[in-house]
Amino acid sequence: MVKSIEWAGEKVRILDQSRLPFEVVYIDCSDYSMVADAIKTLKIRGAPAIGIAAAMGVALSAQDIKASSFEEFMAALKPLMDTMISTRPTAVNIRWAMDRLKALMLKNRHLGVETLKKMLVYEAKAILEEDITANRAIGSWGAEFIKNGATVLTHCNAGALATGGYGTATAPILVAREQGKEVQVIADETRPVLQGARLTTWELMQTGVPVTLITDNSAGALMKNGRIDLCIVGTDRTARNGDVANKIGTYSVAVLAKENNIPFYVAAPLSSIDFTIPSGEEIPIEQRPAEEVTHICGHPVAPEGVRVINMAFDVTPARYVTAIITEKGVFRPGDLKKVTIEGVNLSELRLKP
Amino acid sequence: MVKSIEWAGEKVRILDQSRLPFEVVYIDCSDYSMVADAIKTLKIRGAPAIGIAAAMGVALSAQDIKASSFEEFMAALKPLMDTMISTRPTAVNIRWAMDRLKALMLKNRHLGVETLKKMLVYEAKAILEEDITANRAIGSWGAEFIKNGATVLTHCNAGALATGGYGTATAPILVAREQGKEVQVIADETRPVLQGARLTTWELMQTGVPVTLITDNSAGALMKNGRIDLCIVGTDRTARNGDVANKIGTYSVAVLAKENNIPFYVAAPLSSIDFTIPSGEEIPIEQRPAEEVTHICGHPVAPEGVRVINMAFDVTPARYVTAIITEKGVFRPGDLKKVTIEGVNLSELRLKP
Repeated sequence: MVKSIEWAGEKVRILDQSRLPFEVVYIDCSDYSMVADAIKTLKIRGAPAIGIAAAMGVALSAQDIKASSFEEFMAALKPLMDTMISTRPTAVNIRWAMDRLKALMLKNRHLGVETLKKMLVYEAKAILEEDITANRAIGSWGAEFIKNGATVLTHCNAGALATGGYGTATAPILVAREQGKEVQVIADETRPVLQGARLTTWELMQTGVPVTLITDNSAGALMKNGRIDLCIVGTDRTARNGDVANKIGTYSVAVLAKENNIPFYVAAPLSSIDFTIPSGEEIPIEQRPAEEVTHICGHPVAPEGVRVINMAFDVTPARYVTAIITEKGVFRPGDLKKVTIEGVNLSELRLKP
Repeated sequence: MVKSIEWAGEKVRILDQSRLPFEVVYIDCSDYSMVADAIKTLKIRGAPAIGIAAAMGVALSAQDIKASSFEEFMAALKPLMDTMISTRPTAVNIRWAMDRLKALMLKNRHLGVETLKKMLVYEAKAILEEDITANRAIGSWGAEFIKNGATVLTHCNAGALATGGYGTATAPILVAREQGKEVQVIADETRPVLQGARLTTWELMQTGVPVTLITDNSAGALMKNGRIDLCIVGTDRTARNGDVANKIGTYSVAVLAKENNIPFYVAAPLSSIDFTIPSGEEIPIEQRPAEEVTHICGHPVAPEGVRVINMAFDVTPARYVTAIITEKGVFRPGDLKKVTIEGVNLSELRLKP
């Protein structure tokens, strides 16, 4: 299994996804700003992965903080966390990771700065490990919804590369295959950054899952022609009501799936669900540079000076989402808000295949 | 107005669209096989334009035929026409143009081979002129459906470059602007060959129509956000029942438009309507090389050896089509079959804005 990120002693080692699939190059980040830059420039991407990266980046640079009190330490941590949060606005995982580190610090303020520094490293590594565990659980729950012989359409990359490992959208496919089912994947290329063409195909080819690359334009026609059995995508942030922000074009896939009576699943670790916002309308949508559209691999593909709209994400309203696959089970989007209620009987809430 | 093709004495001059917008280069074709090659390799593309090109290519090489009888002449013409028809299977315009030339020959067989040769040239030039006239009429009829201040989404290129001039999908926009309306265009980039990014933006920027380039993935989100007022696309072949074959991704645009209550118009000269087939299911869909998807401008964007599906077109069922804009008026897709019935009252059949 390819590793998108790991804690390497006094470095955070990141696989440079901007150069995949042509070069497998790792970057050793020696401080938080290198990590922030790697996030901003899409060297590491995918909501869970950038949450892990942000936590590791902060933990790394926290080691260099000279502080004589808890308050001084927290004041010095704040700009590091703010930098991380500012890198990419749509995915909630960075804020979630920062909140988690902050809460840990507050809870253990009495232990002293040096201990807190060690705890940050421990926690960042735990976030990575828990992500992998969550993804395996997503895989087990989701695999129940994949029949033998199924063809799964996915959009963008919500595979191992987008996470600590195993992937979110890819996990049910991998588990289904472990269970002996034949499953194949159709990967949307996912313009403009081509995460589907460059990353999803590459990592699935390495695991032996049969994968076919298509242009984003082809998904609808294949659905209409009966060649897609279900869709599984990831999410950068899902709201309390089940509205799903994900890579631009996800909304189109969801509408086309609904029109063709094809189930549309979203694989979402709880870390990517933002229970603080009532609906997708509150999710900020990142606008990215025009050059991502006008240039491909550095080569112009449009007239100089053309006006461009380049939204990195869109929001799929919950009514298009068949179910959300989490590490706690598969739920109807409308039931998400009940999942975190204490004492709720999850087995009653879970959707059965 | 940019000229995609013209009759230049003993040559057929074609603007090489594969090099646009970076180089404006014309190719002088000296025989039919050069024209056929230009069609196959997308140096000239667009259903009306390749119909014109095929007619001109046949007319050009017909001049070199040595034949002592009408039968000999027709036997020599046949392989030229067959070659043209075999270049691209989906657009009906090439077959339409060949049928038109053949009918002209049969009707005038008594005039002798040398006269028939001249008539072929005259007819090929007439097909070009009539195309421009038809497009202006499409513009006039279609402009009635464009309100002041409208934003029009288009997919692929159905502009001047795809036709003899003026365009099909672009014609209503140009006429609306001549009428003093403010109209802007959102152009889908149209992977894999990027006709929207390379051609539609380029030709509209030259005419002064405000145009914004987006990835194909962005169309749905913009519709949902209320930023598109109507869609107008071209067609490579429309069946008698109003099913529309057009560039891959058109079906997705149509479904998204329907879902968002946005009118979806197809600009179709009668030369692109195939009244011989009852529905879109009979339209052959061209499969193009994988390299169009795995490489962009010669640069790889996917792992070597990845499996690819690359359908050049899809079929949009008539139920998604608000209306078809022809040179004879704007009609509901279901009314198309009545348009050619002799004695039918077109003004009763026409859709009013």
